[in-house]
Amino acid sequence: MPGASAAALDAADPLAGHRSAFVGSEGSLVYLDGNSLGRPLRVSAGRMATFVQEEWGGRLIRGWGDLGEGGWTDLPTTLGDRLGRVVLGAGPGQTVVGDSTTVQLYKLLHAACSLRPGRTELVVATDDFPTDRYVAESVARARGLSLVWVEPSDPAAGVTDDDVAAVTGDRTAAVLLSHVAYRSAWVVPVAGIAEVAHEVGALLVLDLSHSAGVLPVDLDATGVDLAVGCGYKYLNGGPGAPAFAFVAARHHDVLAQPVTGWMGHADPFAMGPGYEPAPGVRRLVAGTPPVLAMQPLVDMLDLLEQVGIDAVRAKSVALTSFATDVAGRLLPQARLGSPADPARRGGHVTLTHPRMREVVAALWQRDVLPDHREPDGLRVGLSPLSTSFAEVEAGISAAAEVLAHLG
Amino acid sequence: MPGASAAALDAADPLAGHRSAFVGSEGSLVYLDGNSLGRPLRVSAGRMATFVQEEWGGRLIRGWGDLGEGGWTDLPTTLGDRLGRVVLGAGPGQTVVGDSTTVQLYKLLHAACSLRPGRTELVVATDDFPTDRYVAESVARARGLSLVWVEPSDPAAGVTDDDVAAVTGDRTAAVLLSHVAYRSAWVVPVAGIAEVAHEVGALLVLDLSHSAGVLPVDLDATGVDLAVGCGYKYLNGGPGAPAFAFVAARHHDVLAQPVTGWMGHADPFAMGPGYEPAPGVRRLVAGTPPVLAMQPLVDMLDLLEQVGIDAVRAKSVALTSFATDVAGRLLPQARLGSPADPARRGGHVTLTHPRMREVVAALWQRDVLPDHREPDGLRVGLSPLSTSFAEVEAGISAAAEVLAHLG
Repeated sequence: MPGASAAALDAADPLAGHRSAFVGSEGSLVYLDGNSLGRPLRVSAGRMATFVQEEWGGRLIRGWGDLGEGGWTDLPTTLGDRLGRVVLGAGPGQTVVGDSTTVQLYKLLHAACSLRPGRTELVVATDDFPTDRYVAESVARARGLSLVWVEPSDPAAGVTDDDVAAVTGDRTAAVLLSHVAYRSAWVVPVAGIAEVAHEVGALLVLDLSHSAGVLPVDLDATGVDLAVGCGYKYLNGGPGAPAFAFVAARHHDVLAQPVTGWMGHADPFAMGPGYEPAPGVRRLVAGTPPVLAMQPLVDMLDLLEQVGIDAVRAKSVALTSFATDVAGRLLPQARLGSPADPARRGGHVTLTHPRMREVVAALWQRDVLPDHREPDGLRVGLSPLSTSFAEVEAGISAAAEVLAHLG
Repeated sequence: MPGASAAALDAADPLAGHRSAFVGSEGSLVYLDGNSLGRPLRVSAGRMATFVQEEWGGRLIRGWGDLGEGGWTDLPTTLGDRLGRVVLGAGPGQTVVGDSTTVQLYKLLHAACSLRPGRTELVVATDDFPTDRYVAESVARARGLSLVWVEPSDPAAGVTDDDVAAVTGDRTAAVLLSHVAYRSAWVVPVAGIAEVAHEVGALLVLDLSHSAGVLPVDLDATGVDLAVGCGYKYLNGGPGAPAFAFVAARHHDVLAQPVTGWMGHADPFAMGPGYEPAPGVRRLVAGTPPVLAMQPLVDMLDLLEQVGIDAVRAKSVALTSFATDVAGRLLPQARLGSPADPARRGGHVTLTHPRMREVVAALWQRDVLPDHREPDGLRVGLSPLSTSFAEVEAGISAAAEVLAHLG
């Protein structure tokens, strides 16, 4: 509905009713940062209190159970399987939940090097999220590999399969890319890049931090080898929520990672001499799983399962398209820093202007919360289940007012 | 008061009033596993719900703040400093909270190797907790060091400074030991071992998982170089709570660790090229801090600060002494697997008997919860602020009954 009003779009939105399930949605605050820290579901407050009282306080040490008994010990893989099914397009036995995105990525990049012994290069995008670049540098240095940087040949776009083909070859161990770029929201062509990587015998490691929960991922169908992602963005797990990691089943036989904690052991409670890795993806688990911190993820997976990721994506496209239209109308001084084609655009929209740092600071004073991203980006994050079209219009109008006042 | 009844001891216990602050303390369940998973404080249920509603839900992305602004971004070091002051005997700027014990230990052992370049051996105790042994093996392999195993020369005791002196020399990079052994509760002589290690230029890395919160630690006074510990035992942080890590200030200039995430960068929100470590111990932080999961630790630190660690230790000694006496009286068939000298004994008592596996299984059926530790140990965990003398007596009586029935 190009040109439709925010009110009309909200009235016609089949997901509009879910917005009230989130804490704070009744207030006047305009939240355009759910891609950085998703709002809590109202049920999560009660779940945390009940968990402390009844599960932790009531089951106590019995809550853990032995491996395979369905207790807390199994949560990394049972919650991982559910995440795989609801959000990632990943069959069971390939996903674990736990640790931070940084730690999971660290394990996966070491695993990728072990899966491709003798290869000497790791391909990384110049504008990828800092942790990805920093961890890739660290792992490459430790294992004697060189980093090879890839950047978009078209600066208005993001990394394509041709860009990846230009820098990969028989020396490439793995290609690390974000599914959705954290600044521009560019969606990399996953299947094409996986094919390019596989043609030269390399692996594709995908960071799903800005796609999991907002964009269908299809890990199995697109041939991704390893993947990592964040729990507190579109998965609404709360500040510093556990992350997740995926390894395709075809790599499990020779899967190895260096953070060899007791909970990744084949028989953790035997406490025997020498590390013997658990079968399959379970060996990615390192220390004791962050059970308390996993709880809000359960609530968001309940909701995502009920709604379905395709419906979430449909609203996401409508929201980013609407934001783009409104920005074109109200903020003509700003440039669209995100793809105009919705098929190539993730869940957020970045608008650039030399004074965006000041604009964002002024908006925060007015309880309008987008993100600033260096050097000149205003990032409009649109979490489909908690963001209304009215919120988008109010936020971009406010930005236009602020920019006009700045002169 | 040798021979005093449990009732008399509880009546005379100055800390008895704090027991009701813990969830479940009013029930008939006998919990002798607070050294494995501490009971929740009642206030923690409310804190979690309030945090979700008001902090996460109300402050949203604003909760993070910039480094040094006192927001969530600072929690790893502000909570670390408080832990250092209340529990660890560590001055400010040396402790961080986050990740699992396994991940923190992994970072610390790499850091220790970097602090002692050219050294080729890592000393580890044969009966240390599995994660410690497994991670030491992994780090040693990755960096080309050999593991050197230390075991007690007196099998009835634990590792002493003489034992360490016998296996250390100018090839030793670091000695990794648990402050309190997870099975026997043996307390290693920290200052003596630090001296032995330092005489040959090696570092002492101490695992405080079974001492932090129950035994004064005195990291600064005893010369410990690096330390790690668990948040869910005597610190009552909940299942899978964040761990902590300590590095003495004298090592900060050359401190390096390989899990180089964005939150350990000197200027994380600049998101610039190349990893530049934050000053001091902050560079141990890797990914986004587990803010939600840190909350129960705040409640327990409030209580520990109010009570004081010396008072906690005094009750701990009284509890373990009472458990030893009662076991001697009611369970003469079992052997004391812990030091008889309270000065050498941590917060738990292990009783050994060939049938302890069956005994523990039967006790769990009766809502008496000690731990079984391979091969033949019944571990009586005594968390001083939540355990009564009556609970100890009831638990050991029940064990005696069970063992009598087993014949």
